[in-house]
Amino acid sequence: MIALEQSLKFMIDIIFYSYNIKFCIYDTIMSTNHQLSYFFNPKSIAVIGASETPGKVGYNVLKNIITSGFTGKIFAINPKADELKNILDYPAYKSVLDVPEEIDIAIFVIPAKLVNPIAEECGKKNVKGLVVISAGFKEVGGEGITREQELVSIARKYNMRVIGPNCLGFVGINYNGSFAANTPKEGGIAMVSQSGAMLTGMMDYSMEQSFGFSCNISLGNKADLDEVDFIEYLAEDDDTKVILCYLESIDKGEKFLKVVPFAARKKPIIILKAGISEAGARAASSHTGALAGADIAYELSFKKSGVIRAKTISDLFDYGEVFLYQPIPKDNSFAIITNAGGPGIVATDAFEKEGLKFTSFSESILHLLRENLPKEAAIFNPVDIIGDASPQRYAFTINTIFGLNHSDTGKTNSKKEVTTQGALIIMSPQAQTHPNEVVKLIHAISSEKLQDKPILCSLIGGVSIHEATKYLNDHHIPCYPFPERAAQSLKALVDYSNFLKTKQIESREIPRFKVDKDKVTSIFANARDDGRTVLLSYETSEVFERYGIRSPKTRLAKTPREAMKYQEEIGKVVMKIVSPQIIHKTDVGGIILDINTPGEAFEAYIQIVDNTKKFGPQIAKVYGVEIQEMIDFRKEKKVNELIIGMSRDPQFGPLLMVGSGGIYANFLKDVSFALSYNFTEADAKEMLQKTKIFSLLQGVRGESASDIDSILEVLLRLSQLVNDFPEIVELDINPLLSFIKGYSAVDIKITISR
Amino acid sequence: MIALEQSLKFMIDIIFYSYNIKFCIYDTIMSTNHQLSYFFNPKSIAVIGASETPGKVGYNVLKNIITSGFTGKIFAINPKADELKNILDYPAYKSVLDVPEEIDIAIFVIPAKLVNPIAEECGKKNVKGLVVISAGFKEVGGEGITREQELVSIARKYNMRVIGPNCLGFVGINYNGSFAANTPKEGGIAMVSQSGAMLTGMMDYSMEQSFGFSCNISLGNKADLDEVDFIEYLAEDDDTKVILCYLESIDKGEKFLKVVPFAARKKPIIILKAGISEAGARAASSHTGALAGADIAYELSFKKSGVIRAKTISDLFDYGEVFLYQPIPKDNSFAIITNAGGPGIVATDAFEKEGLKFTSFSESILHLLRENLPKEAAIFNPVDIIGDASPQRYAFTINTIFGLNHSDTGKTNSKKEVTTQGALIIMSPQAQTHPNEVVKLIHAISSEKLQDKPILCSLIGGVSIHEATKYLNDHHIPCYPFPERAAQSLKALVDYSNFLKTKQIESREIPRFKVDKDKVTSIFANARDDGRTVLLSYETSEVFERYGIRSPKTRLAKTPREAMKYQEEIGKVVMKIVSPQIIHKTDVGGIILDINTPGEAFEAYIQIVDNTKKFGPQIAKVYGVEIQEMIDFRKEKKVNELIIGMSRDPQFGPLLMVGSGGIYANFLKDVSFALSYNFTEADAKEMLQKTKIFSLLQGVRGESASDIDSILEVLLRLSQLVNDFPEIVELDINPLLSFIKGYSAVDIKITISR
Repeated sequence: MIALEQSLKFMIDIIFYSYNIKFCIYDTIMSTNHQLSYFFNPKSIAVIGASETPGKVGYNVLKNIITSGFTGKIFAINPKADELKNILDYPAYKSVLDVPEEIDIAIFVIPAKLVNPIAEECGKKNVKGLVVISAGFKEVGGEGITREQELVSIARKYNMRVIGPNCLGFVGINYNGSFAANTPKEGGIAMVSQSGAMLTGMMDYSMEQSFGFSCNISLGNKADLDEVDFIEYLAEDDDTKVILCYLESIDKGEKFLKVVPFAARKKPIIILKAGISEAGARAASSHTGALAGADIAYELSFKKSGVIRAKTISDLFDYGEVFLYQPIPKDNSFAIITNAGGPGIVATDAFEKEGLKFTSFSESILHLLRENLPKEAAIFNPVDIIGDASPQRYAFTINTIFGLNHSDTGKTNSKKEVTTQGALIIMSPQAQTHPNEVVKLIHAISSEKLQDKPILCSLIGGVSIHEATKYLNDHHIPCYPFPERAAQSLKALVDYSNFLKTKQIESREIPRFKVDKDKVTSIFANARDDGRTVLLSYETSEVFERYGIRSPKTRLAKTPREAMKYQEEIGKVVMKIVSPQIIHKTDVGGIILDINTPGEAFEAYIQIVDNTKKFGPQIAKVYGVEIQEMIDFRKEKKVNELIIGMSRDPQFGPLLMVGSGGIYANFLKDVSFALSYNFTEADAKEMLQKTKIFSLLQGVRGESASDIDSILEVLLRLSQLVNDFPEIVELDINPLLSFIKGYSAVDIKITISR
Repeated sequence: MIALEQSLKFMIDIIFYSYNIKFCIYDTIMSTNHQLSYFFNPKSIAVIGASETPGKVGYNVLKNIITSGFTGKIFAINPKADELKNILDYPAYKSVLDVPEEIDIAIFVIPAKLVNPIAEECGKKNVKGLVVISAGFKEVGGEGITREQELVSIARKYNMRVIGPNCLGFVGINYNGSFAANTPKEGGIAMVSQSGAMLTGMMDYSMEQSFGFSCNISLGNKADLDEVDFIEYLAEDDDTKVILCYLESIDKGEKFLKVVPFAARKKPIIILKAGISEAGARAASSHTGALAGADIAYELSFKKSGVIRAKTISDLFDYGEVFLYQPIPKDNSFAIITNAGGPGIVATDAFEKEGLKFTSFSESILHLLRENLPKEAAIFNPVDIIGDASPQRYAFTINTIFGLNHSDTGKTNSKKEVTTQGALIIMSPQAQTHPNEVVKLIHAISSEKLQDKPILCSLIGGVSIHEATKYLNDHHIPCYPFPERAAQSLKALVDYSNFLKTKQIESREIPRFKVDKDKVTSIFANARDDGRTVLLSYETSEVFERYGIRSPKTRLAKTPREAMKYQEEIGKVVMKIVSPQIIHKTDVGGIILDINTPGEAFEAYIQIVDNTKKFGPQIAKVYGVEIQEMIDFRKEKKVNELIIGMSRDPQFGPLLMVGSGGIYANFLKDVSFALSYNFTEADAKEMLQKTKIFSLLQGVRGESASDIDSILEVLLRLSQLVNDFPEIVELDINPLLSFIKGYSAVDIKITISR
């Protein structure tokens, strides 16, 4: 591996600047969190559309608020208030404006058409937050879309925040403001869901699990408040230990990327992103667009933000539970203890699959195991304490591998040892196994001596291990019927541990190169004025030149004299007709190669223009003749073809790509991606290292290494370009020829928006 | 896509022969099955080491036989028989030889050292089968290995079959001959396990599931009977509907490949192969060996045999249950019905991931749905019948999508429609949902009208759907807490359905080319005589020539006159010194290019031999000078570099490889594999189509197609070669240059065993 570390440090034209986004983030948190806290801790709630008819949503919501033990004031709003006086023993009013006291939160369970006028009244009444359960907004299209826009306008006008519309409601510790059939148990998991039905299902499911919720929030149409707002709030919420999200879309990608990485350092955030198969509305006329999978931007943004991604609903809860109850391991260094070979092998396979690492025990630990376990036991990790293992043997082994039996025997290695940072303990019920005793000892050791090391169990069986399983659940040690899910959960802990070790975003350095932005602006403006969205090649060449990316020099000559001037400036050139209407330049005699003198350039200009007049279409608008540097790449000792590109993700912005280029790029599919947001040199390195061609660039079979630093620089400069110009829709460099020293971006395609 | 179909039909030198392995297979089945049936239906069992002390294995086994209701005779064998007379009320004998009646099965629970002498007695007593629970054999190494070999010899001598040693025992419908704590429920699943602990765990787990077992077999060390023997038996066993295996190794790969494909046509076979991470003892000095993953041979052999592979223990049971209770679908064409958007999206993602296809409903079905479902419903597949779906709406929708409400509306399409072949029905408990009613209707429709279409359910929730879930389990409709596992199970059914549609092995044509086997035998013998295992290049060239694979013609000249002769025969040649001691031929002047006349060849011979005498090592043994055809590949319009090779898997034999070749083959890793066992033209096509380079061979961007048929022929000829010569350990062709017409195997490496 070559010394990548030297890298860009020597480039003279870079200005590093500290990426100081933190202050503005904190500002957002203060204001949003202040407003959101009304939903979590309201002093008073009005139910708009409260009903005394069981089965009606307006009844269910009011009933849930009451029975969930809300201690603040409750007002029932109903047009028939004059007759009813009270609904379920709470005072009824015709309008919020009639309520004599302050209202913090209004929950809407009335037909969509009536929502906005009453929202307006809520604004006048100085209500802080609206929970709009009512459906009939954006999701029905047509006038529903206008209605939703109006609702947001009203909220903005009166500085109110809105959950929904078209949602299940809000369930917090202080009250259940939803129409769900049950109020879930209280606990440390915050659940945020874009699907009401999924939320009901999961709440129902959770009733029998060992965990409970700090809140269950149904986002509905996300007209105002979305997942990012709640993630931001919940990261600071003392009742919440873990944040789980079920999402079908993330509409505001940049907001997500700004907020979530900070929140994720405070609380683990686990997201199940559904609707993968329907995503991918990304433009795909470029190589980059075609090669990027529909899901890649979500994958990258989750990774960048420290989000743990659940692939299934089962994962979502497994990860929620393990993060709720177990500590984050310091290192990827674990042990398996088993009393049965088969399950141990299954667990080892699962560890391997998840990339979990086995601690290599110290000599002193091995010595203790060897002396005290039966000779049939396997003392190397995974440790098989065999079928007749007693509870005491389990306890001895756990204590030993964590170094708790480890009086200094003088046998410790001189090198600093990586110690065991957590364990998966497997028990298969056999004749001599006493499951209930074993789990009690596991819990005792774990809670007394291993507070910073995750312990997970897999008890394999049914009737024989019911009681033991229940004991583990009650004592917050995650227990799985088979070892595979345990390995996945442990991997989630490791991923989060690794994220916490990464550099804080605010201390990362995003290089800013000196560039000529104004010139590029004018090139784009010219093309647009001309009705073109795909740049011509002398234009792409100049854009790259202004951003410090090397490509064959190209100039547009509009007269034979200019052709002479540019040939003189560049050297050996090829000359080509420039006309958007002429696609096949060779066919009309529009290309002349190997021009070495100004005289030849003069004559070639006249010849090319003559040829195209003679052989080209009558309507052809001729811009002039392109004078392009001819580089003889055969002189280079080593040439690798790369593809580098950008396509714009509708949610997460520019998506950079690098990989194996050339005419077969689309078949080789050897490419890797990164978000251009906060793109650092380390990101550039990481994405290049993920490609197969990276090995070739490093040099194989005695070859010299290619100029990898220069490729990283291209990626960083490209990132700056596409961030500076949101009008660049797509960009492909294919091939970029990489040499032992330097490179050349030979063929460039830039597409801009109209 | 080019017409691959023409293919080899035109080759003149092929003799197709019908691969008539079926008869010999049937022979095996008859004899083995006859012997194995004693284990399943013994008339009498002797427990060797029976004990009346609770807690002892000899007690547990006897007790299990008795309490599991065995109706045959039971004999307790114990050295203290004279004192005891009876053990647990059954007659005790000192030796099997003392038993006055016939013994079918003897179960051993005595120390290892005592096993073989008593096995000998069993032989004399004409016992049919031994179940050796005792440990202390191969698994302990040393004398244990000898002991196990002896045990097998004894069994062979007396024509007895052996289960174990070192196992849990045998549990059948007629008796529980194991020391497991519980006797599992009776049912249609046969479970075969290489791990006793895994078997106990799984039996225990199953006690609460909806399925039961026809047998639970613990294979132990597989000294005699192994998984293949039992698969063969169980395929014919009337009590068994599905065969589940937990395996850590398959030691007899060829036996597996011979037997399992036949068995799999009779019963679904599901295997969890553990120990993936420890496999891969394959030789890896070749490209092919290095590129083949450790698990690839298992993966290929399972696919070839129609085995459904479970990736986790949870899969194993999920698949077992779905195959036990649901029919095999005719096509990959399914529907999802859901009353909630979120779970529907999750299920759609899972379908997409598993490659399950959505039926495109006919106009008449869509019409019915449109007319009868609420306007908010999604009538296209997946069908969302929305939150207020009543049981009747579920029933209506199921009937409709299966065409059961489908009176001819005159709107059916003219083209033959693919109809729905199965469904996943999702229910999320909402206010108007009546789960218990819904599941009753689902079961009624499924059992009355959809006997040939699999129906799976996912009820999302906990307390609200307990009763409904239990109802489904009791009525054999698989029900999953979340949709992802349902999709996996449905995929397993589709895989099996596809396997059943493949051509029967016995009707497949394995091409046999006319070759010169004797000549190749003598080439290998010469090399071996010479102490070489890697062939020299004139040897590989001749081996290939004799097997009809084109490579540059190469001859070994031992005199200047021979050089003349060969040059005249071949044409333009390169001449190279041949000496195993000279590695860098150019350095010693050992290579001369561009030889066009016999005269030049004569002189070149003398020059090369002179040069190597002067500049080469003193010890160099000179075989002569190689005369090799020089082909100018630059004349070819299209050249693709392929790699083709073979490495020998220790279990499953020759493993063929094809993919992108050249010096970067190991970095591109664009290769695919196939077992050479029963290798047909269709297999060759399939493996080539799996590579990325296949697109390039087909021709992209207006290029001509390469001669794909000729590549397929190389693969088939190579397969014949490596099957004819088990001494070929590894073989690489890299590159094989593929042209528009023809190919050339430029660089060949063949390694043979000593």
